[in-house]
Amino acid sequence: MLIIMGLESPREDINKVKEKIIEFSCTPHEIPGSSKLAIGITGATHLLKEEDFQMMHSVQEVVRVSKKFKLVSRQMKSNDTIIDFGGPTVGGKELFIIAGPCSVENREQTFEIAGQLKEMGINFFRAGAYKPRSSPYTFQGLKEKGLEILDEVKQKFGLKIVTEVMNSQSLQSVCEVADIIQIGARNMQNYSLLEEIGATQKPVLLKRGMSATVEDLLLSAEYIAAQSNYNIILCERGIRTFETSTRNTLDLNAVPVIKQWSHLPVIVDPSHGVGIWDKVPQMSLAAIACGADGLMIEVHNDPENALSDGYQSLTPKKFKELLNKLNELAPIVNKEMKLYENANSL
Amino acid sequence: MLIIMGLESPREDINKVKEKIIEFSCTPHEIPGSSKLAIGITGATHLLKEEDFQMMHSVQEVVRVSKKFKLVSRQMKSNDTIIDFGGPTVGGKELFIIAGPCSVENREQTFEIAGQLKEMGINFFRAGAYKPRSSPYTFQGLKEKGLEILDEVKQKFGLKIVTEVMNSQSLQSVCEVADIIQIGARNMQNYSLLEEIGATQKPVLLKRGMSATVEDLLLSAEYIAAQSNYNIILCERGIRTFETSTRNTLDLNAVPVIKQWSHLPVIVDPSHGVGIWDKVPQMSLAAIACGADGLMIEVHNDPENALSDGYQSLTPKKFKELLNKLNELAPIVNKEMKLYENANSL
Amino acid sequence: MLIIMGLESPREDINKVKEKIIEFSCTPHEIPGSSKLAIGITGATHLLKEEDFQMMHSVQEVVRVSKKFKLVSRQMKSNDTIIDFGGPTVGGKELFIIAGPCSVENREQTFEIAGQLKEMGINFFRAGAYKPRSSPYTFQGLKEKGLEILDEVKQKFGLKIVTEVMNSQSLQSVCEVADIIQIGARNMQNYSLLEEIGATQKPVLLKRGMSATVEDLLLSAEYIAAQSNYNIILCERGIRTFETSTRNTLDLNAVPVIKQWSHLPVIVDPSHGVGIWDKVPQMSLAAIACGADGLMIEVHNDPENALSDGYQSLTPKKFKELLNKLNELAPIVNKEMKLYENANSL
Amino acid sequence: MLIIMGLESPREDINKVKEKIIEFSCTPHEIPGSSKLAIGITGATHLLKEEDFQMMHSVQEVVRVSKKFKLVSRQMKSNDTIIDFGGPTVGGKELFIIAGPCSVENREQTFEIAGQLKEMGINFFRAGAYKPRSSPYTFQGLKEKGLEILDEVKQKFGLKIVTEVMNSQSLQSVCEVADIIQIGARNMQNYSLLEEIGATQKPVLLKRGMSATVEDLLLSAEYIAAQSNYNIILCERGIRTFETSTRNTLDLNAVPVIKQWSHLPVIVDPSHGVGIWDKVPQMSLAAIACGADGLMIEVHNDPENALSDGYQSLTPKKFKELLNKLNELAPIVNKEMKLYENANSL
Repeated sequence: MLIIMGLESPREDINKVKEKIIEFSCTPHEIPGSSKLAIGITGATHLLKEEDFQMMHSVQEVVRVSKKFKLVSRQMKSNDTIIDFGGPTVGGKELFIIAGPCSVENREQTFEIAGQLKEMGINFFRAGAYKPRSSPYTFQGLKEKGLEILDEVKQKFGLKIVTEVMNSQSLQSVCEVADIIQIGARNMQNYSLLEEIGATQKPVLLKRGMSATVEDLLLSAEYIAAQSNYNIILCERGIRTFETSTRNTLDLNAVPVIKQWSHLPVIVDPSHGVGIWDKVPQMSLAAIACGADGLMIEVHNDPENALSDGYQSLTPKKFKELLNKLNELAPIVNKEMKLYENANSL
Repeated sequence: MLIIMGLESPREDINKVKEKIIEFSCTPHEIPGSSKLAIGITGATHLLKEEDFQMMHSVQEVVRVSKKFKLVSRQMKSNDTIIDFGGPTVGGKELFIIAGPCSVENREQTFEIAGQLKEMGINFFRAGAYKPRSSPYTFQGLKEKGLEILDEVKQKFGLKIVTEVMNSQSLQSVCEVADIIQIGARNMQNYSLLEEIGATQKPVLLKRGMSATVEDLLLSAEYIAAQSNYNIILCERGIRTFETSTRNTLDLNAVPVIKQWSHLPVIVDPSHGVGIWDKVPQMSLAAIACGADGLMIEVHNDPENALSDGYQSLTPKKFKELLNKLNELAPIVNKEMKLYENANSL
Repeated sequence: MLIIMGLESPREDINKVKEKIIEFSCTPHEIPGSSKLAIGITGATHLLKEEDFQMMHSVQEVVRVSKKFKLVSRQMKSNDTIIDFGGPTVGGKELFIIAGPCSVENREQTFEIAGQLKEMGINFFRAGAYKPRSSPYTFQGLKEKGLEILDEVKQKFGLKIVTEVMNSQSLQSVCEVADIIQIGARNMQNYSLLEEIGATQKPVLLKRGMSATVEDLLLSAEYIAAQSNYNIILCERGIRTFETSTRNTLDLNAVPVIKQWSHLPVIVDPSHGVGIWDKVPQMSLAAIACGADGLMIEVHNDPENALSDGYQSLTPKKFKELLNKLNELAPIVNKEMKLYENANSL
Repeated sequence: MLIIMGLESPREDINKVKEKIIEFSCTPHEIPGSSKLAIGITGATHLLKEEDFQMMHSVQEVVRVSKKFKLVSRQMKSNDTIIDFGGPTVGGKELFIIAGPCSVENREQTFEIAGQLKEMGINFFRAGAYKPRSSPYTFQGLKEKGLEILDEVKQKFGLKIVTEVMNSQSLQSVCEVADIIQIGARNMQNYSLLEEIGATQKPVLLKRGMSATVEDLLLSAEYIAAQSNYNIILCERGIRTFETSTRNTLDLNAVPVIKQWSHLPVIVDPSHGVGIWDKVPQMSLAAIACGADGLMIEVHNDPENALSDGYQSLTPKKFKELLNKLNELAPIVNKEMKLYENANSL
């Protein structure tokens, strides 16, 4: 349930509404919008009656939210959530690009790629320090050592860091380095971890599980939002189907569906979504064309010798060509490639 | 196996190669390319040896085709197949658009939509006279009467007709009206029908089955090509997955995969692929952005009262807006919207 | 809609009900049950009102059928349909077994296998004369020649023949030889063929399409039943999923679902369902354990040299071991292995 | 890689082999079998050469393991792993049954069900204290309070407890109460948790993820085994497909595949696998018929008012009927229902 109040409502009126909600053992969530203030309510909302609130001061409307997810739903907040990283943003007009290698392999490789991306104007650098791998015998990431290298990248190149957290134990150290904490597809329904990350208030990149429906994804986002953390970026990265010609089936239908159901930003990871580097540029363009707010793309200076996922990584040269195409495409879908502003050369 | 010869090879040399192939109880297929002449070979090719052909006059190269599909593979013919409809083409630079209602419902509705599409410059009109439906109790199309109406549309508006054939019995009458014969998803593996249609030499629009892999689709195309009919347009229209927020999961990954594996044109049907009209424009743009040669889109003047699939049909107004967007997008992916040339107004 | 009348209702009363139905442009279908006579109604039944029939002579009850399929639904007919083949039956207490090679390869192989199966007491012999194959270049069956061999098997061994029909052209000649006409997975939604086969009144074995839901399967059966042919055996044979360790995913859940939703017999094809011979016995037992009425199993005397699907065929020796196990299992699920009666030796 | 030695090999010889493995920075794992001692090797085994070990004392054979999973593979250990719970066992001849409600709801309900199951001779009681739920707003379990109730059940009824762990934080307290720690489908690829649980050496029940392949499942088991914990019970519980008539698609094919690929015991959860109580008995029988070592079944005294998953729970009465059927079925697949020994009455 959702209580709509004027943005200028006196604090006293707002507090009375919140107290009433708490009386019913439910939880109020203030969600300021551009023209209204919404008080989201979660908990046993079936006990509440519209009439209990309709006559209260400053209350304009009382709305039942029909979806299972509440705080992340478009009904709760009609305008798009824009997350601001002190300049670059995601969810608004700006096309949001994250790039980098699958894993931090060593300082030299990481610096080399980071340097090239910085020159192209990229602001967000991805690289895994902790790598969840199907087999315990494949490269699992440099772990703490990887985080240290990412911290150096942050200092030296001024890039913002996107990296995955796999468990509570390392959450604190990942938080110290990461500007955006990534939750991988395999952990999308690790609800304990979602709650802990929600509590940190850090921006979160939540990847869709490989057999998660769009509703499942939004319910997982709801776990984070329920900790009052609304800085959530959703990421479509391909689902499992019978098709074997590609690593996963990139479900771009999900982009307009999420945009309709939720106010959260949504980006696409075509590298995992198709799994073969030579089809990544086409799928990147498709993702933006159907309304995604951005992309997360694997870029590696030496894909053939990458320790993980080399076959799906673009070289910096191919990536630069893709950026040029994206720059042409952006205005057609009312987006803008701001990264050019801080590019040294392109 | 594939015998590559110079384009200027004397007919005598070509015939000798073909005779040798026939000696081994295999079948030769002449496939003229832009710079070379290829002789495709189908049948028990494992009996053939490269050496049998390498020393023959005018033979430049002998190639084993590694895919299960042969004639439709990119190895057989490296340049794109362009099908020419006496002006409009598919498979080349031109963006190819088919539009129209799901079914022919009556003359009035059909003429109304056809007229509006004609004014927008559309050349290809789709509408089903025979409708394969899961339930025997839902509207199955006007059948022969529907074909008659389509014939009138053809005469009156000069539109080319794309319509589905469901069985051998009606193949002859469909061929008389249709410029492109559509094979629906449910008949993609109706091999008897594929062979009969192949034999007509008519252009064919082959829709991917809802659980067909890309390889399955190309093998079905091979059934048609094996009848020496290369006028095949492939169509991605969504596959079945666990996701329930959309009617099907549009597998756009398939577009660059098909483009790499085959020389045939490929288009996308976002209306079935997503199943909800308000997401059709986004998915149309995505399809073209990832390299599709064209689109097939359901347009209805009164979607709410359509006899079939109304909820996935665009109104002419929405469709026109989409065409404008596509016109902006086309040059970015090296395509061109030629339909504007014969538009009365846009 | 369904009109329930007493079994002893005078013909005059029955005819009046049927005439009333026809007045509304709907179609009546007489479905005699064990204790009642039901008149099924198909067509635009929303135009009918319960009151129109409730007061008519001999009418006991008027029931709305909630499923999309009508004639094949359990609501239409509460007792199990038992199809009688002049002795052996399917759908009742008797365990129904069809066995034989994937294809008729030649007379010698076919006779050899048929002879061995006959000795084990098997009544129903399967073998394909027409083989739908994904690739046009793999063995497509002996066609007319194959049917001749099957006819000889029928005469010589007294076996009943189960063989697939692929198109209208060969329907007549298949009907002359086959005791049960098989419709393959790829043709499950070839509605034209379903209607033609329905009209022959021959017993039909309808295999589930590889991405068909249970509802789709029952709707396809409805196409046959709507031609007044109720001799339909449904067959689960595996669906397409992401799992690659088996050829298909055998969906045994479908067995109790079908049993609940429909009165038709249902059997399982574990050979296609798992695709590897060494797991066929286990899945056969599982199929019967969850309530299937029978099995269709591929048996080949020389699996390694079979022209199609050899890797999923049991040898006669392994098949005999399986029959012994099935004989032990049958009474636990209220079934009976009658085939032992006409076995020469086991 | 795997070094096969005689069971009676002198400790000195064994140690020398292990030291040599460690020299190459790999890890040795002693796996005693019934007739041989195997030393499994994990790590960068491509650096090892067969010749390095073949000439060592007591070494009988050196084997490359072809699967990605090693320690859990049948190649590593050819005889079935039997886990002994001080009387009852799983993986051998004995049919292993776990039963109980989805969740601990309160002491009364839990005691009521536990008492009835105890009377039927059941040894293993399941009930969730921590419930991973798609929505943050549905019942999440009684948590610590639930564990306390389970501990009382253990003391009062002498039942062994099977309950799920969701995170590291509660692992210690779950371990204190649980005899078998359950890892739910959503956590199957939570590798950090798998490693922590592996280290506890507690028996583990590992449920297949809803889009995990059999290989994925065995690789997750490998994470546990790599911590030298071989007390792993695998559990098939249904996968996600397009079918909507059942909650999941129970993939019974997986049972014989796992039995062939791995030495670990495998059980089936038909309650989640089909999702509707009235089809649970059939699927239970099917699971045992195809070779599963046991079952985990939801039983509730008042399914209609259960706080979670009531629609898939059997009543104690229906469950007792199922046990009787299983008792009849067991000998056919060389199993035995030992639970009858400690049943008070049945």
